[in-house]
Amino acid sequence: MDFSESDRVRECRQVVRDFMKKEIYPLEPKSRQEGFAAVLPKLKAARAKAKETGLWAAHLPEEWGGAGFSLTEFAHLSEELGHSPLGHYTFNVQAPDVGNMELLLSHGTAEQKDRWLRPLVRGDIRSCFTMTEPEFAGSNPVWLGTTATKDGNSYVIRGHKWFSSAADGAAFAVCMAVTNPDAAPHQRASMIIVPTDTPGFELVRNISVMGHRGADYQSHAEVMYHGARVPLANRLGEEGAGFQLAQARLGAGRIHHCMRWIGICERAFDILCRHVITRELAPGDLLASRQLVQQWVAESRAEIDAAWTIEQKGTSEAREEISIIKFTVARTLQRVLDRAIQALGALGLTDDTPLAFWWAHERGGRIYDGADEVHITSVAKRILRRYGREQ
Amino acid sequence: MDFSESDRVRECRQVVRDFMKKEIYPLEPKSRQEGFAAVLPKLKAARAKAKETGLWAAHLPEEWGGAGFSLTEFAHLSEELGHSPLGHYTFNVQAPDVGNMELLLSHGTAEQKDRWLRPLVRGDIRSCFTMTEPEFAGSNPVWLGTTATKDGNSYVIRGHKWFSSAADGAAFAVCMAVTNPDAAPHQRASMIIVPTDTPGFELVRNISVMGHRGADYQSHAEVMYHGARVPLANRLGEEGAGFQLAQARLGAGRIHHCMRWIGICERAFDILCRHVITRELAPGDLLASRQLVQQWVAESRAEIDAAWTIEQKGTSEAREEISIIKFTVARTLQRVLDRAIQALGALGLTDDTPLAFWWAHERGGRIYDGADEVHITSVAKRILRRYGREQ
Amino acid sequence: MDFSESDRVRECRQVVRDFMKKEIYPLEPKSRQEGFAAVLPKLKAARAKAKETGLWAAHLPEEWGGAGFSLTEFAHLSEELGHSPLGHYTFNVQAPDVGNMELLLSHGTAEQKDRWLRPLVRGDIRSCFTMTEPEFAGSNPVWLGTTATKDGNSYVIRGHKWFSSAADGAAFAVCMAVTNPDAAPHQRASMIIVPTDTPGFELVRNISVMGHRGADYQSHAEVMYHGARVPLANRLGEEGAGFQLAQARLGAGRIHHCMRWIGICERAFDILCRHVITRELAPGDLLASRQLVQQWVAESRAEIDAAWTIEQKGTSEAREEISIIKFTVARTLQRVLDRAIQALGALGLTDDTPLAFWWAHERGGRIYDGADEVHITSVAKRILRRYGREQ
Amino acid sequence: MDFSESDRVRECRQVVRDFMKKEIYPLEPKSRQEGFAAVLPKLKAARAKAKETGLWAAHLPEEWGGAGFSLTEFAHLSEELGHSPLGHYTFNVQAPDVGNMELLLSHGTAEQKDRWLRPLVRGDIRSCFTMTEPEFAGSNPVWLGTTATKDGNSYVIRGHKWFSSAADGAAFAVCMAVTNPDAAPHQRASMIIVPTDTPGFELVRNISVMGHRGADYQSHAEVMYHGARVPLANRLGEEGAGFQLAQARLGAGRIHHCMRWIGICERAFDILCRHVITRELAPGDLLASRQLVQQWVAESRAEIDAAWTIEQKGTSEAREEISIIKFTVARTLQRVLDRAIQALGALGLTDDTPLAFWWAHERGGRIYDGADEVHITSVAKRILRRYGREQ
Repeated sequence: MDFSESDRVRECRQVVRDFMKKEIYPLEPKSRQEGFAAVLPKLKAARAKAKETGLWAAHLPEEWGGAGFSLTEFAHLSEELGHSPLGHYTFNVQAPDVGNMELLLSHGTAEQKDRWLRPLVRGDIRSCFTMTEPEFAGSNPVWLGTTATKDGNSYVIRGHKWFSSAADGAAFAVCMAVTNPDAAPHQRASMIIVPTDTPGFELVRNISVMGHRGADYQSHAEVMYHGARVPLANRLGEEGAGFQLAQARLGAGRIHHCMRWIGICERAFDILCRHVITRELAPGDLLASRQLVQQWVAESRAEIDAAWTIEQKGTSEAREEISIIKFTVARTLQRVLDRAIQALGALGLTDDTPLAFWWAHERGGRIYDGADEVHITSVAKRILRRYGREQ
Repeated sequence: MDFSESDRVRECRQVVRDFMKKEIYPLEPKSRQEGFAAVLPKLKAARAKAKETGLWAAHLPEEWGGAGFSLTEFAHLSEELGHSPLGHYTFNVQAPDVGNMELLLSHGTAEQKDRWLRPLVRGDIRSCFTMTEPEFAGSNPVWLGTTATKDGNSYVIRGHKWFSSAADGAAFAVCMAVTNPDAAPHQRASMIIVPTDTPGFELVRNISVMGHRGADYQSHAEVMYHGARVPLANRLGEEGAGFQLAQARLGAGRIHHCMRWIGICERAFDILCRHVITRELAPGDLLASRQLVQQWVAESRAEIDAAWTIEQKGTSEAREEISIIKFTVARTLQRVLDRAIQALGALGLTDDTPLAFWWAHERGGRIYDGADEVHITSVAKRILRRYGREQ
Repeated sequence: MDFSESDRVRECRQVVRDFMKKEIYPLEPKSRQEGFAAVLPKLKAARAKAKETGLWAAHLPEEWGGAGFSLTEFAHLSEELGHSPLGHYTFNVQAPDVGNMELLLSHGTAEQKDRWLRPLVRGDIRSCFTMTEPEFAGSNPVWLGTTATKDGNSYVIRGHKWFSSAADGAAFAVCMAVTNPDAAPHQRASMIIVPTDTPGFELVRNISVMGHRGADYQSHAEVMYHGARVPLANRLGEEGAGFQLAQARLGAGRIHHCMRWIGICERAFDILCRHVITRELAPGDLLASRQLVQQWVAESRAEIDAAWTIEQKGTSEAREEISIIKFTVARTLQRVLDRAIQALGALGLTDDTPLAFWWAHERGGRIYDGADEVHITSVAKRILRRYGREQ
Repeated sequence: MDFSESDRVRECRQVVRDFMKKEIYPLEPKSRQEGFAAVLPKLKAARAKAKETGLWAAHLPEEWGGAGFSLTEFAHLSEELGHSPLGHYTFNVQAPDVGNMELLLSHGTAEQKDRWLRPLVRGDIRSCFTMTEPEFAGSNPVWLGTTATKDGNSYVIRGHKWFSSAADGAAFAVCMAVTNPDAAPHQRASMIIVPTDTPGFELVRNISVMGHRGADYQSHAEVMYHGARVPLANRLGEEGAGFQLAQARLGAGRIHHCMRWIGICERAFDILCRHVITRELAPGDLLASRQLVQQWVAESRAEIDAAWTIEQKGTSEAREEISIIKFTVARTLQRVLDRAIQALGALGLTDDTPLAFWWAHERGGRIYDGADEVHITSVAKRILRRYGREQ
């Protein structure tokens, strides 16, 4: 396991860093204060420039228009992009599209790839993923109310979903639905592609989250399937393989979130440090001289370093302990943001920095893709099972 | 010290509890999703009904239209009102008006009381308090850039303020400004009443906080004084007494916040418990059966009880250790909200409950009216000074 | 509920404080460095003087030689005595004797009182309590391996106990044993008095705890009952009432521990403060000037205040929520000791202060009389059951 | 940076693991219950066998009888040895000897090496390091009261030291003393070798720590220099270089402690897991099934992994951020021990496992070699200085 940055990685980080400063940071204030939709035209222009960097959709193989990055290389890129809430979108590596691209690449038929993957990779369309259901606990992923019933050459889908991120404006949804209700619990569901203009697909509302309905890419929708009918050929992978595909998708997704969170931590740390070395408590008396502030600096640095190393180690080894990484990084993120806001005082509450946005909108990090508690118990059970077997 | 609820308090709590259920909770969803201004007409009607309960402006003496509540009695009321973000406003005991009423009552001239206090008490107008300045650290309250220069029979005020809560729509501001720059640091500033229609008083903007500019009562403004001119008679209290009045005002204000926060904690705890005893993880398998959830219940209960008892003790004794109470309750609030959100999962992030609103908008509790760190160091210094003297 | 100190309490605290300084603190260093047994002769003399204060065995009614203290009054006394590891013993209010006295007083026959309670109250003998068993988890108190079989007019007891505190030198043990194996789980056990010179009662060893076997009163024994035979008349209370008596005994015992722990906290806080206001980091540069130290002072004071108020509230109300108090105070104790040791640095590790003794020997506080986790889950279940019933 | 275990490391770990099981673990119970001195004869035999493994004094170059291990290789060995309180001693890599060997190797004259280093390496003698002084705060290492005055061809040393670990039985001490009182603060002190049989060298006492005076290698002494006279040739390194040498010695020493602490964490984690998978709360109902226990398992694993990765990273890069590693690992150690004790309940308090020993005797880890707080502020200042320079 080698964590050092290759020359390629170092160069790529510098390119992104420069790009962020020039093209993305200037869009942040308007985005925070007027909403994501207000900066869409400028983001479109930024995306065009991003394509020229050679780092567009970098997680994909080169023949698919990506940079052929390994997971470790992608981690470095993703951390860098995480410095801004607009970073991943600009380089077309944003969730949930990045996960859907990987699904299509690995499990899509040639036709599915042609129809859905190509325009996704080009950034011409967006997509969403409809799995979570309000009536069923997300911590039990095999317990679903949505069904896809075969009718001739079609699936007819009925069900109720929510927290379908970025559904607003998406061209298609990947839907988790029970196709085999009598199979073993882990083999009941399939994944099915549903164009959002299919009759019976209803985007009920963008859910108001932390006081914001959001719009377009930055939104989380409630979705109803009222007997939406799609061809059987829209199924992704085998019948009954939905849970298995979802696990693979989520496994990678968790690591992707962690990479991005490390990037947020680094930006928050940077904002904290820059503030305290200039903020005066009295003429010539810097906030940075206070031990309580120094404690935040040192503990944040220690926790980010620890989070970074276990995330890198996990990424490079494709280790099974993604659970540990996920809850460790999610907690680190919350603590670092908390300290940065506290250090900035009233300013930290305002939208003059991205800290407040992250405080509100990354609170979900400890909940989505498996709540901390789900990961904690699952990793403990796995460890204790190993001990049990050794006896 | 007697913490038990008198019959009067018990009765009053029940009245408020019933009122909240009938008149206030129904307004919450609209307020959260469309903003405070959207419910103003209905709030006006609710306020009219609140006056009939006899608990309107209960902190004021009866001759001033209040209920003559002691601080301890008020604490119980305030806790009850804290269950909703709309509670205090409805009973006209909301910050910053409650503090301004107390200032006027204790230090206002007969004329000032007539002109400003009476309509405030009736709820006909609102007010704001302009103290904090973006360029000067709030943790050093004697370091101010705003000046009020005498010119004939007037003060001419120049300066830059922000986080003037509820300035949007206020009839007047109380302004902290330096009147005696050559005096000792704690005797430089005075408090001056400035009607918001005074030429030179500019409400620059409602500051975007956690993604919201807010409106009307729920807002925090940036304010400029461009040579605003008011009569000398608008000064509140003695010249140079500004800091002293502010300390008294903030002291009470801190206790008021703590009372309200306990109310929020109780509501969040209630939401948490109600959720986990009905939410199923699988058919018949309740979330409440999980030890990690039980830990949140027990620890939250323990921390709220502890916060409640020290808050009550401090209130009944008018103890000097408000600092301890303030940071203890503010931290308890954040932890309890955090656990409640985690227990509700995705639902906790939505605006279907008030948890998300509080998560975002009460993050400031650990910052305003003295950051935790200011209170921590000041209480420690006081204790250690006592030890030093004993030697 | 009134937490204020009555004149009687205030006076009693002063008496104890003076007594501690004069008679007990001087014995501490020898006790720490040579063990409890080394100071027994001097403690005997101190006990004689303690009797003269009128506060000897103060929890008992006056007709039994005590001071007739209410639980609240006793709490104040106990807190004061907790300042020294030798305090409770000197006033004959030490566990486990205090619990055994209460058992005998409430449930003993006239003969049992005469034979066992009288000499206990006089301090002529000591006793122990044998409940915990190494093979059975203490968190399940109805699961016991020790049996007492009736044989004619006798019980014949067989079983294995440990953590029988102060068994070394005790005149008798109270033994929890199954007398009715076929009854409902909570009605299987009885309490039986077993003189330690009974054939078949074996004190196997004083268990080495934190590197110390201890001796006499400061010890924790492993005990075997090899068919120890005692008259049926030695049973305390009804047959099958053992669990019920144990719960009552432990309930009071937990509060007693909490009182003592608050006393330890106060002493540790005092040691911390005295150290930092004199310790120099450089000439004239006091440790007390450091914010990180100030944070320990403020947070410790806040946590002790909170612990004290909920302990007092619980005591005065005989509230059922002893569980909350127990785990809150036990955790506060550990945190306060941790900070005091850290503030003293190397000195805090030595036996020049009592901090190290408490660090090692009060670590058990979070385990005995119900581990934190047992209390956490039981209190949560009780709260959630109430919610369930309301529905 | 490559963290993977080389074949050599893997093999060495297995050798040590087997050795520990066969030769060292069996000595632990006696050592805990009767003290270190009681097992010295058996340890001598174990040391003889340790030499045969080829891993004796492995940190030293092969020409000096070591294994020529790199710091990273040594970290793996040290972690393995840390599983037992007797591990490092058995392989002659115990503090403070390991630090003194490095000092002599790097800075000793040929004669000093012959006389002191050779027998140290062979394990024929032990040594100690006398730096800390009771009257001067350890956090200010340039503030020393001990002086070494030149008198002809000798130094005459006067001063008061404590926490000289393992001085009891040591053949010589390395003494930090002021030789150049008028030089700049960091150039005042020198290191001088003082044989412990030098007249004027007095081992006053083994300090009682956590209730134990200890003996021989496991002890911490108070030492007086009453005008002890040694040749000028006993000075280690340049005159005035004492502080600089101490920094280098401590830097390595901190990493050594961290390696050992990780080993302790792993053993404590192992004890925890083995206990909970066999301990029943009721017949067939394992402690391992409880979520609160699972939380300890998962969080401990996460924290140990994080500590391990940053320790390895720091070691392999010889990074300057030893401060971060030190306080992170020291805190992890305390938390993991705390959870393991809690999981074992009463058993965790006894000396039937090494947990209690570590709980008491590794509490010092957050204090020695620079208290957490010293590291926290120094690392923060370094980071903030970098930010300051960038401006």
